[in-house]
Amino acid sequence: MSHPIPAGVAAHVPAETTGFVFNHTMLRVKDPTTSLDFYTRVLGFSLIDQRHFDEAAFSLYFLAYLPAGTRIPADAGERAVWMAKLPALLELTHNHGSEDQDGAVYHNGNSEPRGFGHICVSVPDIEAACARFEQLEVPFQKRLSDGRMKSIAFIRDPDDYWVEIISSTPYSP
Amino acid sequence: MSHPIPAGVAAHVPAETTGFVFNHTMLRVKDPTTSLDFYTRVLGFSLIDQRHFDEAAFSLYFLAYLPAGTRIPADAGERAVWMAKLPALLELTHNHGSEDQDGAVYHNGNSEPRGFGHICVSVPDIEAACARFEQLEVPFQKRLSDGRMKSIAFIRDPDDYWVEIISSTPYSP
Repeated sequence: MSHPIPAGVAAHVPAETTGFVFNHTMLRVKDPTTSLDFYTRVLGFSLIDQRHFDEAAFSLYFLAYLPAGTRIPADAGERAVWMAKLPALLELTHNHGSEDQDGAVYHNGNSEPRGFGHICVSVPDIEAACARFEQLEVPFQKRLSDGRMKSIAFIRDPDDYWVEIISSTPYSP
Repeated sequence: MSHPIPAGVAAHVPAETTGFVFNHTMLRVKDPTTSLDFYTRVLGFSLIDQRHFDEAAFSLYFLAYLPAGTRIPADAGERAVWMAKLPALLELTHNHGSEDQDGAVYHNGNSEPRGFGHICVSVPDIEAACARFEQLEVPFQKRLSDGRMKSIAFIRDPDDYWVEIISSTPYSP
């Protein structure tokens, strides 16, 4: 890196963390139907598991980008172990009944009180991806043409969480 | 899956989303020194890039679990393209000066207003990992022994964001 290593960074990766995987990010969603539609139809994630806790009145939906033809283990225990080894899952939590509330239920972290900022999906052809989002009437937080950073966009999911879109190929607007 | 496919899930993965990658999750942090220490020394992430925007007074730090011996491209442009293809990066945003504020600066999403819930790291030996976190005096939100779900734990990062710890190997407490 062109900058000196910043303070705080460990001198080496601890041996005890071998095999650690950044498995997932969890977001609460108001209505799983609209969120599952957005993440599968618009963004191309696959639903790989759902877990329903009726007594505690919540459900979990796990989504991932899988290589074509991936076989999801049918056995729940086998599936849980398989999933735990994967990086980059998205977990959506649905507290039953939130879909019947009026208006927005969740806070996207980008107004006070701030914290979480966004998730990001990289795409091979960012202009084509953004044109398709327009066609699908996905709301934009920032179009490629907005602001100073012309090579990134932000779309908004059904709960208003921001999804950054970046190019995974060299791109100069 | 043992449940019917829920409403909203697309019948197939759209061809237009081929090559999409869930690249990163962004969290704002008060003090990059303490956060980089936590994510590298405690959790074993590697810092793969840092970007400083002095005029806008913020910095970005990108972390990842990399296979041992991975060579990070030295050229910034090459590195950006390489990074954009990776899944499961963690982006930490530091707004300059936040480290000098008193008390907590950011909201972890788990009290009102709720939204983002947590990130999750899977580990090959969850008992050893949790024993090490205890030894390193990492605060726990939920120990393995707390509550009903004895196979998961939650630790807290320096901004109080929750990090779920799950086992990536069959584990029955």
